[in-house]
Amino acid sequence: MNDNTSWDSLVDHVARIETLRGVMGTLGWDEQVMMPPKAQPLRGAQRALLSRLGHEWLIDERIGGWLADLEGSDDPVRRACHRNLGRTYRREQRIPAELVDQLARARSEGFAAWIDAKKHSDFARFAPNLERLLELSRRRAAAIDPDRHPYEVLLEEFDPGTSVASLREMFARLRDGLTPLLMAIADRPQLPELGATFDPDRQQALHREVAAALGYDFDGGRLDHAEHPFTTGLGAGDVRITTHITADDLLSGLGATIHEAGHALYEQGLPHEHAGTTVSYAASYGLHESQSRFWENFIGRSRPFCNWLAGRLEEHFPEAGVDAERLFRASNRVERGLIRVQADEVTYNLHVIVRFELELAMFEGTLAVKDLPEAWNARYAEYLGVRPESDARGVLQDVHWSGAAFGYFPSYTLGNLYASSLGATLERELPDLWTRVEAGDFAPILAFLRDRIHSRGHLDEAPEIIHAAVGDRDHVEDLVSYLWARHGALYGAERG
Amino acid sequence: MNDNTSWDSLVDHVARIETLRGVMGTLGWDEQVMMPPKAQPLRGAQRALLSRLGHEWLIDERIGGWLADLEGSDDPVRRACHRNLGRTYRREQRIPAELVDQLARARSEGFAAWIDAKKHSDFARFAPNLERLLELSRRRAAAIDPDRHPYEVLLEEFDPGTSVASLREMFARLRDGLTPLLMAIADRPQLPELGATFDPDRQQALHREVAAALGYDFDGGRLDHAEHPFTTGLGAGDVRITTHITADDLLSGLGATIHEAGHALYEQGLPHEHAGTTVSYAASYGLHESQSRFWENFIGRSRPFCNWLAGRLEEHFPEAGVDAERLFRASNRVERGLIRVQADEVTYNLHVIVRFELELAMFEGTLAVKDLPEAWNARYAEYLGVRPESDARGVLQDVHWSGAAFGYFPSYTLGNLYASSLGATLERELPDLWTRVEAGDFAPILAFLRDRIHSRGHLDEAPEIIHAAVGDRDHVEDLVSYLWARHGALYGAERG
Repeated sequence: MNDNTSWDSLVDHVARIETLRGVMGTLGWDEQVMMPPKAQPLRGAQRALLSRLGHEWLIDERIGGWLADLEGSDDPVRRACHRNLGRTYRREQRIPAELVDQLARARSEGFAAWIDAKKHSDFARFAPNLERLLELSRRRAAAIDPDRHPYEVLLEEFDPGTSVASLREMFARLRDGLTPLLMAIADRPQLPELGATFDPDRQQALHREVAAALGYDFDGGRLDHAEHPFTTGLGAGDVRITTHITADDLLSGLGATIHEAGHALYEQGLPHEHAGTTVSYAASYGLHESQSRFWENFIGRSRPFCNWLAGRLEEHFPEAGVDAERLFRASNRVERGLIRVQADEVTYNLHVIVRFELELAMFEGTLAVKDLPEAWNARYAEYLGVRPESDARGVLQDVHWSGAAFGYFPSYTLGNLYASSLGATLERELPDLWTRVEAGDFAPILAFLRDRIHSRGHLDEAPEIIHAAVGDRDHVEDLVSYLWARHGALYGAERG
Repeated sequence: MNDNTSWDSLVDHVARIETLRGVMGTLGWDEQVMMPPKAQPLRGAQRALLSRLGHEWLIDERIGGWLADLEGSDDPVRRACHRNLGRTYRREQRIPAELVDQLARARSEGFAAWIDAKKHSDFARFAPNLERLLELSRRRAAAIDPDRHPYEVLLEEFDPGTSVASLREMFARLRDGLTPLLMAIADRPQLPELGATFDPDRQQALHREVAAALGYDFDGGRLDHAEHPFTTGLGAGDVRITTHITADDLLSGLGATIHEAGHALYEQGLPHEHAGTTVSYAASYGLHESQSRFWENFIGRSRPFCNWLAGRLEEHFPEAGVDAERLFRASNRVERGLIRVQADEVTYNLHVIVRFELELAMFEGTLAVKDLPEAWNARYAEYLGVRPESDARGVLQDVHWSGAAFGYFPSYTLGNLYASSLGATLERELPDLWTRVEAGDFAPILAFLRDRIHSRGHLDEAPEIIHAAVGDRDHVEDLVSYLWARHGALYGAERG
């Protein structure tokens, strides 16, 4: 077949799959933000119908022929498409339909069992489900590629291009780099909380102003409320963010808005002109997370940002009398806690590393499911200096494993690692970075991210995109240095 | 094939089509209520994809076989399915794909031309498009059934079971019945407007309370704002309404909410257990409109309802000091106006009759497009006693013709006709009707409509459903009597 005819057919077909994905995204957003409760069964039927269609289209055997025609292409978009689509196509082709059904059922039962187990704080109620989910996931990994590390096969779904070996190495060094910082801080007096309340209705205008200032385009998106904030990119011109505003925790809500705006800026800046080629999507979960965490932490918890934010706060809530110093200190409290989603920047990665090490051990057969709670508690005691008093606030706290999302957790810390190298690079390349931030001028930062990350879409794998963006940098050292610089200074502790 | 296997396959297939229809409905709702402006092209692609799919599924040739197996069934659901699905299947099969494309293009161009013509108040700019839309619609009608009146073929899409002959007869009598009432009222002093303003944010609670009082289930729906209020039934458990609230027109906004709640009560009461059989849908546009208008006008503009509403208003807006009498009189002002969507109950049907007569004349070849504005103006002068000063406020005011929605207008007046017979029947069968309304107890009214109309779905055609609900009644006489009773009394005019 003529190469261009073949390419056009491929693009038509993939565009159809991507359009359907946008429809499903819209239904997903609606379900979390708008849908009335009684619509649940109807929505389930709608999603099942579209999932089946999307799967049929994805295993369409014509794709094999189109991919063969792309072999050896010099064009970067076609090369990337050959890699991305080829991977998805092979994965979908190789997983037996029976296993797909078994996993779907096991996930649904697993979720129910996890809810129940968490409610009763009793891991034993969830253990048989976790066994089953692990076994099916191992079979799934073996079906996709029996010759690779099963965990890496699963990881590939979230962070293609990242190896287990590299994660193991980086996470071990990071753990060892964070422990001294956490110990040094632990001796110092705690920073104060913000300790003020802010009317939620009036907070909305502030959130919108902050998101717009960072560069989020409201003509191609919207900001709504959700119990668990998320961002959904439905395609060009439709990237929606959600947040969670409460009266007594201004900073947590604002942090969520800045975090989601970071995700959304990535989605809004993707190369949508390449729709139908797989290239107009984000390169990985880790890279996505690097964008949200870069804005939320590196920028959003910096002193210059707090100086700017204090001015905005003064305008929206003059009666609150919160100054920049108070904002800055309250934004950077470090606490040895049990709960990942409430963790600060310093401890957060230790929460993730515990999960990574444990799921890896389960896949490698060195940890049995029945021993998981004790292994969890021991690692929390060792790395974080706290020991869960219950399964609910320990091993059962996160939903991920109940949905067989093994290999997902590392993306959070990959995001922090990438973000710190982006930050270090930006500081070097944009000498007036912090003056700009203090003035509320975020345009040069966004331009940098657009150029180095967003506009690259999925042309290369995430580690390659990051390497091209920051050069030869040690992400672990970048992250540890950055955390020492900010938190060591705030707490008056010095790196040994 | 075994009859039940055939039936199960049919139900599976139709359920798939209906589920897809619900997805498209969700996208449509989102587009009007939530979607950011820049998402327009993306949404267009999503809708086009799903439309093509739905069309493919609807002309699936297996349907012909399943329908043949249903022939002569005694089961009422299967009989109704044979009729409803058979009609849609034949229509879709018979319209050539080329004509579908031509009409899609002509509609899109027609809409743009209409916007432009209305802006410049210059019918000539839209005339060629209207010619084209009429010609394509005639060809479409001929493709579906060359032996029937083309207008009736088009009408069937909105009100299956209603003939051109019956419309012609009813509408002529209605016109002749309304003229004396309008003339009698014209001599009398005008009723006062409400003349007060109400904070829009605070109005929302009142709107929600009113909709809930009528029986609208918020757990299976929601109330939002839209420029042009509408209701969308997406399936079981998801029926959403929209309204338009302004500070200076409380009654128009409340009227919209009650109107849409009327539509929504119908949708929420449909026999959803028959999903996949075509029976769980409304029987016709006219019957749908009878539900909205029954609540909006027959109930919502009645004196007992105004008495109840005055109490609710007193609670929500104590400072406004609006009493029941003032509400009742302001709710029932009759004015000879030019604009259909602003018309009162008495003049509204004359607006519709003008459109019906003109579109019928164009299809019968007795009216040329170029003569349309003059024919429009002459009929307004004759029936309503007002003459449009411009095309924009005359023949160009409605969007319908720009989308080739010929045969749509009659459903509005069919709705008023059906509603008046439902009202007369309810008054006879429920002697304490108005005491209940005054007490805000709408449950027996809803129970009556659920039993006679909603739960019937599309088991029978609308005229049969109405006949079973009210018996042998003259809808025209019911409507004219009702309007004389309410408006004659209010204006102090007597029926000759």
